[in-house]
Amino acid sequence: MEPKQKAVVLSSGGIDSTTAMAMAKDQGFSIFSLSFDYGQRHRCELAAARRVADFFNVEKHLVVSLDMTAIGGSALTADMSVPKGREMAEMAHDIPVTYVPGRNTIFLAYGLAWAEAVDAACIVIGVNAVDYSGYPDCRPEFIAAFQAMANLATKAAVQDGRRIEIHAPLLHLTKAQIIQAGAALGVDYGLTHSCYDPSEQGLACGRCDSCVLRRKGFEAAGVADPTRYVP
Amino acid sequence: MEPKQKAVVLSSGGIDSTTAMAMAKDQGFSIFSLSFDYGQRHRCELAAARRVADFFNVEKHLVVSLDMTAIGGSALTADMSVPKGREMAEMAHDIPVTYVPGRNTIFLAYGLAWAEAVDAACIVIGVNAVDYSGYPDCRPEFIAAFQAMANLATKAAVQDGRRIEIHAPLLHLTKAQIIQAGAALGVDYGLTHSCYDPSEQGLACGRCDSCVLRRKGFEAAGVADPTRYVP
Repeated sequence: MEPKQKAVVLSSGGIDSTTAMAMAKDQGFSIFSLSFDYGQRHRCELAAARRVADFFNVEKHLVVSLDMTAIGGSALTADMSVPKGREMAEMAHDIPVTYVPGRNTIFLAYGLAWAEAVDAACIVIGVNAVDYSGYPDCRPEFIAAFQAMANLATKAAVQDGRRIEIHAPLLHLTKAQIIQAGAALGVDYGLTHSCYDPSEQGLACGRCDSCVLRRKGFEAAGVADPTRYVP
Repeated sequence: MEPKQKAVVLSSGGIDSTTAMAMAKDQGFSIFSLSFDYGQRHRCELAAARRVADFFNVEKHLVVSLDMTAIGGSALTADMSVPKGREMAEMAHDIPVTYVPGRNTIFLAYGLAWAEAVDAACIVIGVNAVDYSGYPDCRPEFIAAFQAMANLATKAAVQDGRRIEIHAPLLHLTKAQIIQAGAALGVDYGLTHSCYDPSEQGLACGRCDSCVLRRKGFEAAGVADPTRYVP
């Protein structure tokens, strides 16, 4: 039996990355789960990423500490307030203050480094360009450009001809389709966390962009929402 | 008088990045110096980057801690030995064990994030594709691909039309030309550090790739070499 191919999966502990991990697992990859501690306000996502890694029995779960607060410029890492109660239409037309400069570029750069170091075939990222917050680094053209850059960046690709593929399996799915796909693969979404501004007990606020997208996703998918919201 | 444009300069405290910083300063940019503490064996490069930042009276000097040892895969961050006594011809044909997977991709990703957060016009990186160690992420095609990706990654570029330019002013210069250019701009290379494997006192080994390139560069430039080598 051939050894399994390895996949580095960027994991935030949210719905999208967890579903992407389920898909990679289903395709037979050995999972290398990669999370980032970047001083985010919603730190309980790291606990969720840990639960998800355990759930999928990953080969390795690595949490990389990133110094993003020194860089600043975002409501998620600095002392700015997270917007609440926005409509989905607003999210689609305006890049919000929760945008973190360079975040997916940095996450994918680390993914690339780890993928090369462990000889992984691909990096899996759960970005989605349908029901999303309008971040520029979640769009298909960004992912394609990162792939082109990655093909020129690594020793693996340049010297040995082993390109590392960027997989973004959720790119063109709605949130409802993502949840349906994950539910069909047996994902327990009760393990996941999405809220940008949870209570001290880790309950979801229900009103930030991330909560709004999540709640509407479960409704549209016809799947019971296991999220614990603040009363 | 218009405010100066800002440049984020990636600074390792070595000859190349210091010369690139001198050029940016000479062009009138306000300098935001960015260095990385990535568990490198040659930590005294961080002290050199600090000295260089002071020398150029930068607007801000930021040292970002990077968790590269967890990723592994390089003689510079893991417990592998640094090659010594290689000829320049060997360096040009073989990517050595001192290659750090994804390093320049990660460095530029952080540069991009900081450039966006402080509203800088450019990122300056002192990569050089002539007298170099054969790293894939020092080549012009890599820099061009990163630029294309960056143009799609940031809110600044996508929403506001403010692209962040990647400047690699040393790309096609020999080490001797770099040193001559820096000397003409008044750079004190005695402040800089290049050795991959310095002594505990910070003296250069004289035999690693980086020392060999540096030493030959000063010879060819006809500039006195201020480096303190182990006896």
